[in-house]
Amino acid sequence: MSWENNVRKVVPYTPGEQPKSQEKIIKLNTNECPYPPAPGVKKLLEAESYEDLRLYPAPDAAALVDVLAEYYGVGSDQVFVGVGSDDVISMAFLTFFNSDKPILFPDITYSFYPVWSDVYKIPYKKVAIDADFRINADDYKQENGGIIIPNPNAPTGVLEDLSLIEDIVKSNPDSIVMIDEAYIDFAEEGTSALSLVSKYDNLLVIRTFSKSRAMAGLRIGFAIGNAKLIKFLNDVKYSVNSYTMNRPSLELGTEAVKDDKYFRQTLAKIVNTRERMKKELSALGFSFPDSKSNFIFASHATVPAEDIFKYLRGKNIYVRYFKQERIDNYLRITVGTDEEADALIGALKDFVSK
Amino acid sequence: MSWENNVRKVVPYTPGEQPKSQEKIIKLNTNECPYPPAPGVKKLLEAESYEDLRLYPAPDAAALVDVLAEYYGVGSDQVFVGVGSDDVISMAFLTFFNSDKPILFPDITYSFYPVWSDVYKIPYKKVAIDADFRINADDYKQENGGIIIPNPNAPTGVLEDLSLIEDIVKSNPDSIVMIDEAYIDFAEEGTSALSLVSKYDNLLVIRTFSKSRAMAGLRIGFAIGNAKLIKFLNDVKYSVNSYTMNRPSLELGTEAVKDDKYFRQTLAKIVNTRERMKKELSALGFSFPDSKSNFIFASHATVPAEDIFKYLRGKNIYVRYFKQERIDNYLRITVGTDEEADALIGALKDFVSK
Repeated sequence: MSWENNVRKVVPYTPGEQPKSQEKIIKLNTNECPYPPAPGVKKLLEAESYEDLRLYPAPDAAALVDVLAEYYGVGSDQVFVGVGSDDVISMAFLTFFNSDKPILFPDITYSFYPVWSDVYKIPYKKVAIDADFRINADDYKQENGGIIIPNPNAPTGVLEDLSLIEDIVKSNPDSIVMIDEAYIDFAEEGTSALSLVSKYDNLLVIRTFSKSRAMAGLRIGFAIGNAKLIKFLNDVKYSVNSYTMNRPSLELGTEAVKDDKYFRQTLAKIVNTRERMKKELSALGFSFPDSKSNFIFASHATVPAEDIFKYLRGKNIYVRYFKQERIDNYLRITVGTDEEADALIGALKDFVSK
Repeated sequence: MSWENNVRKVVPYTPGEQPKSQEKIIKLNTNECPYPPAPGVKKLLEAESYEDLRLYPAPDAAALVDVLAEYYGVGSDQVFVGVGSDDVISMAFLTFFNSDKPILFPDITYSFYPVWSDVYKIPYKKVAIDADFRINADDYKQENGGIIIPNPNAPTGVLEDLSLIEDIVKSNPDSIVMIDEAYIDFAEEGTSALSLVSKYDNLLVIRTFSKSRAMAGLRIGFAIGNAKLIKFLNDVKYSVNSYTMNRPSLELGTEAVKDDKYFRQTLAKIVNTRERMKKELSALGFSFPDSKSNFIFASHATVPAEDIFKYLRGKNIYVRYFKQERIDNYLRITVGTDEEADALIGALKDFVSK
């Protein structure tokens, strides 16, 4: 017997590499936004109150909650905020996935889902997506303790129809169904499950400021659902850490939501670069599922993904490679600026057409 | 059957009230520091990079970890950082308290301990402190699944001798013993259990930037222990949220540690005001255990604490009152500036000597 017997032992999630050197790196490995947040954020950052840092932030994060509620046309009691969508999803797993039955999620998906399941001792079952990386709604009509599906999925970038999502939510009234919409802002309007929240009390939609809102460095995520769900989630949050969001994240995050014009311009630029990258990657012999996110999940006809990954790294271009069954010949490439896309395509031309 | 059956239902912790109005309030209810953080923090805040907000922070929080390791003379592999000491303790409960045996903590103490126990389904047993609010080491020599003790204790402000702490740590080699030192910077040097970390592998010492370092608004806490403990803690952290500390908290927190002169000056001012408040409160008929923290836990000879609490609130002076067995005739009063102390004592004079 020793204290080590009582330790919760886990295999942690491995985040995408964050370069430590000051070298010029083209960073297309963690799906960050290539453009900065709204200009109003810059102004507010300069004006931020040093004097107030000594004071606790608002535990209910009301300013941020209210601005999100208004933006998405829901009540403030329908919005939950946390330290990135990872914190929000982690808290939601802890709150809602307490059944003896396994929760369900796709076999190829965000690799944090099994990690959260392990740390909270939640049984889970991976549901295979098909050869085209598509989800079959019928696979989610089996006994379960909850469901989580990202839409668009990561790392594939594939978007499923809202009707498929609704089918799954509707077929599982006794389970919480979480739709992880980290990348939905890069898809067409009308594809989000937010429109279903008023119809189904078992639906929780999760979003992040880390991708489309260019604030990965501030750690802001949120969930929208019916008020009852949000109350349960807040109860658990107040049982873990009353003050999760610090003053800068509350203030700057609130400001970012206010500038919708800048937000839409940024999205349009990224979507534009993405569509251009698709054409150029195709021309170089890459294939990929059609991406509705800010990354492309690409495989080359002849050159192994791992070789391309290493080659690009040598050129200080970081992309993400997963050494994992079914997807070990793919690269997940973040959509950067047009200049970054030029550099990437130029480097690839030298390598894959040799 | 409904999804509600699988919800983790909890009674959450209630944080001290954070005023929402812009009215002038003397806020002595949440043990914040009355002085701002180091002046270098102000400069850095003004210079903070708007451009970098789009990028993820360093997941290992290396800059902050390294500066703390250097300051406290330990290895970087002995330091764990989190979103306030609440996040650090919560994570430590989840990591280390996995026994079927109850964990032990004082019956009068930080009211978050039973809440964390409940949310993580950890059995616990409250150990009564004596009539003078003192801890008896022998009470902690019973079977247990872990121990947490704050030193100085909250809300009493009582500091126990390091020899008592060592006795408890030494007597429990098979349990993790956590010493929550949120307030230790306000006590004399040489009272911290940090000096025992190299001697006992079952000791975890927890600190916060929210009190002595004047950064409640940034949410920074840390733990120091042997490298093995810290590794287990980091594994769980990376299984919950890889990026807990955002860019502002990492940058500004690192800067704050560097200005030791300012830190010590601030502490001296607060200790000075505390000692003065003790004299003045005594003269008004209050009694209290001798506080080594930045608050005084005071009870009046004739006027009930709840009446004083309500009266002060009417004067826009916030203090903390706990409607709780054994301590419902006490007020926890944060040590503010000398001007705030003047206002408090002046108001009390009018009320308790009527």
